Amino acid sequence: MRLQQLRDDLTRRDWDDGVDGTVRVAIVGVGHFARTAALPAIAESDYCEATVLVSGSAEKARRVADEAGVERAITYDEYGDGVAADAYDAAYVVTPNALHLPHVEAAAARGKAVLCEKPLEATVERAERLVYACEDAGAPLMVAYRTRFDPVVRRVREFVRGGGVGEPIQVHGDFTIEVISDRRGPDQWRLDPDLSGGGALMDVGVYPLNAARFLLDADPEAVTGTTSGDGPFADVDEHVAFGVEFPDGVTGAFTANFSGFRDSRLSILGTEGRIEIERAFDYARPRRVRAELEGARISFDGPLTDEIREEFDYFARCLLAGESPGPDGQDGLNDMRTMAAVYEAAERGERVEL
Amino acid sequence: MRLQQLRDDLTRRDWDDGVDGTVRVAIVGVGHFARTAALPAIAESDYCEATVLVSGSAEKARRVADEAGVERAITYDEYGDGVAADAYDAAYVVTPNALHLPHVEAAAARGKAVLCEKPLEATVERAERLVYACEDAGAPLMVAYRTRFDPVVRRVREFVRGGGVGEPIQVHGDFTIEVISDRRGPDQWRLDPDLSGGGALMDVGVYPLNAARFLLDADPEAVTGTTSGDGPFADVDEHVAFGVEFPDGVTGAFTANFSGFRDSRLSILGTEGRIEIERAFDYARPRRVRAELEGARISFDGPLTDEIREEFDYFARCLLAGESPGPDGQDGLNDMRTMAAVYEAAERGERVEL
Repeated sequence: MRLQQLRDDLTRRDWDDGVDGTVRVAIVGVGHFARTAALPAIAESDYCEATVLVSGSAEKARRVADEAGVERAITYDEYGDGVAADAYDAAYVVTPNALHLPHVEAAAARGKAVLCEKPLEATVERAERLVYACEDAGAPLMVAYRTRFDPVVRRVREFVRGGGVGEPIQVHGDFTIEVISDRRGPDQWRLDPDLSGGGALMDVGVYPLNAARFLLDADPEAVTGTTSGDGPFADVDEHVAFGVEFPDGVTGAFTANFSGFRDSRLSILGTEGRIEIERAFDYARPRRVRAELEGARISFDGPLTDEIREEFDYFARCLLAGESPGPDGQDGLNDMRTMAAVYEAAERGERVEL
Repeated sequence: MRLQQLRDDLTRRDWDDGVDGTVRVAIVGVGHFARTAALPAIAESDYCEATVLVSGSAEKARRVADEAGVERAITYDEYGDGVAADAYDAAYVVTPNALHLPHVEAAAARGKAVLCEKPLEATVERAERLVYACEDAGAPLMVAYRTRFDPVVRRVREFVRGGGVGEPIQVHGDFTIEVISDRRGPDQWRLDPDLSGGGALMDVGVYPLNAARFLLDADPEAVTGTTSGDGPFADVDEHVAFGVEFPDGVTGAFTANFSGFRDSRLSILGTEGRIEIERAFDYARPRRVRAELEGARISFDGPLTDEIREEFDYFARCLLAGESPGPDGQDGLNDMRTMAAVYEAAERGERVEL
């Protein structure tokens, strides 16, 4: 597989063979990401339509619905009671982590499909209950790992899986955001462990972890970890560095931060080359890909595809075609268990096996 | 401090205020690196002259001496006995790791200054004896961390130390070589733990570790680690991944390999920016520097300066000026203790404090 192939088909939907129909989606949670990223993505999608908005506040739901041109606006309580259940086929749950479980249970109980934001929940135990609720109800469940749906990332994966860098040896990855900003002060849910389940690891560290699993097609076997934080980050990890052992001696060295210079990247070193995705987890800026093989280098900025639209269309296409969407609940649970192990490793100062 | 300043003075010797004289150097060990890198560097140096070559084989010493235009050629036994001691002021010890101690002791016993290759020795205990031998004899000792003498690396350090990326948060680093090649088969000393003290960590992993310490001006407080290897690497680490905790919550995520695609890099993420040195530990190729601050990026290839010549001239200038050269023995011991802790952490599956 040659480097130039990386530049082919950078917008191609390898999963879209065409399907008829539209999936009507209830958006459960209307925070910043839902309003500024998910709703615009759905508006541009081929197979989705936002038909219901759900918020804790009836007024806020109505206001956002009017702005976005969505017909129904209901409260969490009404959603839980099944109000407007005839108006949607699937629920997109985009609340704080510890609220995923009841909202997913409410959808599953009515046989609705679920697209649940990452991480699945605040704790492994609650995430397991979430997954089992969907399994028991026969409700399709997909976890919203949006990065997987950027065609550039998918081409990199094909390159790596096709032996483009030889056998993978090591992965390095980082995702750093300033979680406290002009828009979000220190009282946000991400810094409340009861709502979030953890800090930088749970919110952003999960990206390089999940992306490495996707690109390597392998799951962690053991982890080490170190966390730190103070001030507004006294209750959650402001900084985390964690090592992951994958099968066949492959290792991952990951970092994530809730403060620091904005950075997101993932690189894979193999026996025959190296490939790196810069701005790997930033949905608003185009990916930069750098790859090097013996005697050859390539570096380019991919086109900026709306990976969230891609994610919604992939999810909806699976439902319309009668196929199971993924990454599924077990995939999300894998990350939850790995992150719990990282926290345990950091706490105990030990390598923790999975 | 602005990004453009990184491009200033990329060949400047910040340590060279001029000095008179020449230091006569005995080269103890005439392997590939000594012949193809160190001897040419000394030939181009301002303050050094190679006057004695020392090898296990009288014939090899003579042959290399003739090729390099060096006057004296003696055996290790003769060197140990003090033969030609009047012909050199300093010994450059560039043998397999576990032979450093006797050769350094022989030099120190005669009051000669010592430039000793990294890592200091094969074990912490032997490295301590090496350092104490020099201290007891009052013999100056410097460890040959060549990367520190590349002006590009020194400019990056000034940039980082001057707050160029804000407060450092995390470091990622890697050094990967193919240790088995057309030139070196599986029977080389690097794969014999009695001679090397370890594999990829000791031979190449020490580079990102030492460079991080140099750029951060900080020493490790605790480590985790994972090693693997098989086939010709059954007795030493073919692959290593290790996490380092520095003071103030700064962490390092390092990898090193004895097989894999050639790679060497070091990056520092800070509160206000990020800087990376590519080809960071490769003395034969120019460094590439990438740095990013808010709203600004820079990327350039530094000029290829012979850092080994710089290293020898720095060492000699210190001696001629009556100053202590460095990195000194304690600096080398710090890496030895850290690497021993990484091996212990990998063996025990625990975080090990230093």
